[in-house]
Amino acid sequence: MKVSILKENLSKALNTTGRIVNNKGTLPVLSNILLSTEDGRIRIASTNLEIGINYFIGAKIEKKGSITVPARLFTDYITSLPNEKVDLDLNELTLKIKSINFSSEIKGISGDEFPLIPNIKNNKVLSLKAKDLKEALKIVYFAASVDDSRPILSGIYFNKNENNLTLVATDSYRLAEKTLKIDKEFKDNFQIIVPVKTVQEVFKIISDNIDDEVVIYINENQILFEIGNIELISRLIEGQFPNYKQIIPENSETKATLNTNEFVSILKTSILFAKENANTLKIIINSKGKLEVIAEASQIGSNDAFIEAEVEGKGGEISFNGRYLLDILQNINTKEVSLEITGKLSPGLIKTKEIKDYLYLIMPLRS
Amino acid sequence: MKVSILKENLSKALNTTGRIVNNKGTLPVLSNILLSTEDGRIRIASTNLEIGINYFIGAKIEKKGSITVPARLFTDYITSLPNEKVDLDLNELTLKIKSINFSSEIKGISGDEFPLIPNIKNNKVLSLKAKDLKEALKIVYFAASVDDSRPILSGIYFNKNENNLTLVATDSYRLAEKTLKIDKEFKDNFQIIVPVKTVQEVFKIISDNIDDEVVIYINENQILFEIGNIELISRLIEGQFPNYKQIIPENSETKATLNTNEFVSILKTSILFAKENANTLKIIINSKGKLEVIAEASQIGSNDAFIEAEVEGKGGEISFNGRYLLDILQNINTKEVSLEITGKLSPGLIKTKEIKDYLYLIMPLRS
Repeated sequence: MKVSILKENLSKALNTTGRIVNNKGTLPVLSNILLSTEDGRIRIASTNLEIGINYFIGAKIEKKGSITVPARLFTDYITSLPNEKVDLDLNELTLKIKSINFSSEIKGISGDEFPLIPNIKNNKVLSLKAKDLKEALKIVYFAASVDDSRPILSGIYFNKNENNLTLVATDSYRLAEKTLKIDKEFKDNFQIIVPVKTVQEVFKIISDNIDDEVVIYINENQILFEIGNIELISRLIEGQFPNYKQIIPENSETKATLNTNEFVSILKTSILFAKENANTLKIIINSKGKLEVIAEASQIGSNDAFIEAEVEGKGGEISFNGRYLLDILQNINTKEVSLEITGKLSPGLIKTKEIKDYLYLIMPLRS
Repeated sequence: MKVSILKENLSKALNTTGRIVNNKGTLPVLSNILLSTEDGRIRIASTNLEIGINYFIGAKIEKKGSITVPARLFTDYITSLPNEKVDLDLNELTLKIKSINFSSEIKGISGDEFPLIPNIKNNKVLSLKAKDLKEALKIVYFAASVDDSRPILSGIYFNKNENNLTLVATDSYRLAEKTLKIDKEFKDNFQIIVPVKTVQEVFKIISDNIDDEVVIYINENQILFEIGNIELISRLIEGQFPNYKQIIPENSETKATLNTNEFVSILKTSILFAKENANTLKIIINSKGKLEVIAEASQIGSNDAFIEAEVEGKGGEISFNGRYLLDILQNINTKEVSLEITGKLSPGLIKTKEIKDYLYLIMPLRS
């Protein structure tokens, strides 16, 4: 292999692929990334056996070939170089790297030892704008479970039905649901569960490539996201997503519409007093136009805060884990949100006029 | 105690004093800060028994008194409040805090249980500008030892002699020395060793109060830095600072003058290949005007980099811990630095025309 690449392009590809390597494993090749010439381009690939990434970049190819090199060292090294042309020249298993003022050698492992990343690009099921997918994921994926004790809850449910794509995440204490409109050309419906770690990677990639189209391919147990020159392949989670629709209240007794920033501000202050009490905050909606937040910690003290609210309905009180409220309010980026409640024992709902087809549900705490 | 304070002033005082508390200890009052009314002001005080801070702020005092409250909670709480007036009202051991939209109660511990912070303001030995002290400390204190196995090396040597104040730090692998001119009105000479942790705190405080004057008081085993409305009191380290003058070479065979940023850049890149080799970098100064940096790691590869240099003398080579070079070059903030060497076994020196009376010495490594 003998190729010339622009440092900037190589560095961008390495920063994306370099995140998906397995440094803890016993198989050294898994902490490497693959460089190989393919159809006049360079393919940079990495995998942790759960997720695989192929990143294709343009290059001047003098001699074909492939090699794997340590991801961390190669990424840090290329990133630290000046923004100029980089020459890569493979000599058996040693990669010689030349750029202005620098010349180095890195010992690699044969490309033949690198795990095969499956190519499943024969069943295209969806295409949507990176920007739309990013905005939807941002207000959904953090509600997924972070532990693996119930694998289904550590994934994001993708439910494609006619020209709707509904994304759902829940850890059983809160749930987020957002529906996107999809082009009618995609006829096949499907229901799959994508691991939250995969979705996090997709989120980072689309954030860096916001003007691209995202094309989705699936087979029985895998998904491939194609974003510009990047392919991300992941396993799917097997099983049936919970029938969550039944827990979403259809009507609410009381609705308070609030300035999002003001609500975040009093929650952040109140939660300081709720740490030793599992972040429990009591919320009182007063029909006269006030929302009050009360935090009590028997050992340290208490806090009582309020903001103005536009209240519809008779008012009421409920207790939530304040952290779950902050999770959504700090991601939603709208001027206003509304909180809907119905008694102390029914779930509360966060919605906003500014985002269509979205809801966030929080289970109440006994207080 | 019943007082009104501006949130902004209280918050600034808490952020400084809150750093010096002992959260790990068994004595709860040590993780608290003291609030007390003194001569028409509020004194906010904290101590970890090594360092004590008194921070005085203006307030409207209706009723005198004192109380200690948990530093972390109180600091986070006040910081999170809107920028308005805060009313503090002490009721036995419960502090009631009122501000716009918030009212809270924090349970405290009596001010009588708070350790006495000694007042040693009777022997004023020095006064200098915060800005000058900050600039000097920045290029000296990181060279002190971070472990306590040789206590003397975990301090900064303050040597006041006539109208010079010389600051020295060394961990025995490298040494930094900077001399400042002092007003002639201060006649007493002294030699003291100030713990590096104290100096780090002084550095942070003067960075936030850069227009103030720093007044230094000492007694037999303590030092007090007075910076505007803040007093920082610390123990001194007992013992004799090493006679370091003898290891500083008087002349050098070779001197290379370099662009600081370029030098940092090739060191950062080279050190990626030196990790498994104790950060050893070989430096070759070529009399024809080039400085070369070589890093070799038998397992992973090697790197060879060079930059242009203005060379005086016959040239030569030497090996250093690259981390020690980066420590100074990333703090020095000058356009140019010079590296002086004399053979492989003598210490190397970093100096710069842009900073008077400063030198940084690095012991060579065998390579």
